[in-house]
Amino acid sequence: MEVIRSKSNRLIKETKKLHQKKYRKESYLIEGWHLFEEARKANAEIERVFALENHVNQVTGSIPVTVVSPEIVQELSDSQTPQGIVAQVALKQPLFPKQLTGKYLVLEDVQDPGNVGTMIRTADAAGYDAVFISDKSADIYSLKTLRSMQGSHFHLPIYRVAIDDLLGQFKANHVRILATTLSTHSVDYKAIRVPDSFAIIMGNEGQGISRLVEEQADELVHIQMPGQAESLNVAVAAGILLFSFI
Amino acid sequence: MEVIRSKSNRLIKETKKLHQKKYRKESYLIEGWHLFEEARKANAEIERVFALENHVNQVTGSIPVTVVSPEIVQELSDSQTPQGIVAQVALKQPLFPKQLTGKYLVLEDVQDPGNVGTMIRTADAAGYDAVFISDKSADIYSLKTLRSMQGSHFHLPIYRVAIDDLLGQFKANHVRILATTLSTHSVDYKAIRVPDSFAIIMGNEGQGISRLVEEQADELVHIQMPGQAESLNVAVAAGILLFSFI
Repeated sequence: MEVIRSKSNRLIKETKKLHQKKYRKESYLIEGWHLFEEARKANAEIERVFALENHVNQVTGSIPVTVVSPEIVQELSDSQTPQGIVAQVALKQPLFPKQLTGKYLVLEDVQDPGNVGTMIRTADAAGYDAVFISDKSADIYSLKTLRSMQGSHFHLPIYRVAIDDLLGQFKANHVRILATTLSTHSVDYKAIRVPDSFAIIMGNEGQGISRLVEEQADELVHIQMPGQAESLNVAVAAGILLFSFI
Repeated sequence: MEVIRSKSNRLIKETKKLHQKKYRKESYLIEGWHLFEEARKANAEIERVFALENHVNQVTGSIPVTVVSPEIVQELSDSQTPQGIVAQVALKQPLFPKQLTGKYLVLEDVQDPGNVGTMIRTADAAGYDAVFISDKSADIYSLKTLRSMQGSHFHLPIYRVAIDDLLGQFKANHVRILATTLSTHSVDYKAIRVPDSFAIIMGNEGQGISRLVEEQADELVHIQMPGQAESLNVAVAAGILLFSFI
């Protein structure tokens, strides 16, 4: 078993590059035992594990294991309190489905990795069939997004798409498009009856949904707020809608 | 008008201490124009404003203004992208109400400032009457919590309390106590009919609610999850419940 104690080791330096999106073409890093177990349960291809010496026994099977020091675990994860394991997992983009039918969540240009991860986790919890995210949304394979997502990317397919193409596909497949807006010139979500196939589109934290989505949507939806706050956090709003529509 | 360009200035150093909870006895800091406007609308006592030279005209009235450099604004806020204004606001704890009647949110030992702030913002949006937070929950006057809260502490009272006292007060005032749990040995929220006066208790991110709350609650509530995720983010769960019960 390989043992590495130096941060300047070539393998460590190469692996750390996976913190940057441009290097995450074929693999990405996950941190912590929970995600490692989720990866195993999902039969994800785990290419390598970096673990503390006293944790190595917890990694069974034929995965290559590298024993590293606590400093290196810290270096490879971006967590304040890393859990003694970082794993490199093969990145497999799912193929766009030939037919669309089911319940979908769409994220249009959501910037914050925590929001993106939390919404995917919520869609998973609520039993949605897939999540579609626009090119400009936060990357789902960053450690931050993965932490909020808590393994949900192992449970449901996540497609990175161009929004205009996606809207066309929804229309061709009779998937009803519900776009969320802050405007009260739209329907309160409590008055909405959803069909079997629908997609909820959540927009950017500051700007909301794009003009294109607003024009193409079958229905514009808002959450009526009797209180004084001007808006809801986008992940909270998504949670309310996703659970209301199941 | 005072102008300060040195980070080692005594006023700046004193003010920066307000980043630490132990110094926030009588005042706290807010960052950005949105919170500043909310403070004004709420007639909060703004003790001092630190602003960039080109923003000073935006601060009207009799508030003492100190012109500072961008580096000092950065130093006083903890934001990556500060907005050119930091204000020191008098901290006024609301008196515990003599009578309890209405819709309440209770946070028991919620650790993450972002979660605490987001839940208070959501309770505000949903028109709840007050929020009660346990001693061990994240401080609401940290810049992080304030950022997530988006000014909601100016809209509804937030009481820091001992949970056992609070439960006694709820019982004495016939406020129905609904405690959230992950256990499915409880009632799905969709089956709950709430009375006029009730309190929803959200627990710690890792441990959930305490044994005491579990025992004293009138009803244990969970959110049924048809999908594969093991749990929801606590702020998302709160959002679903708060809006479902209004």
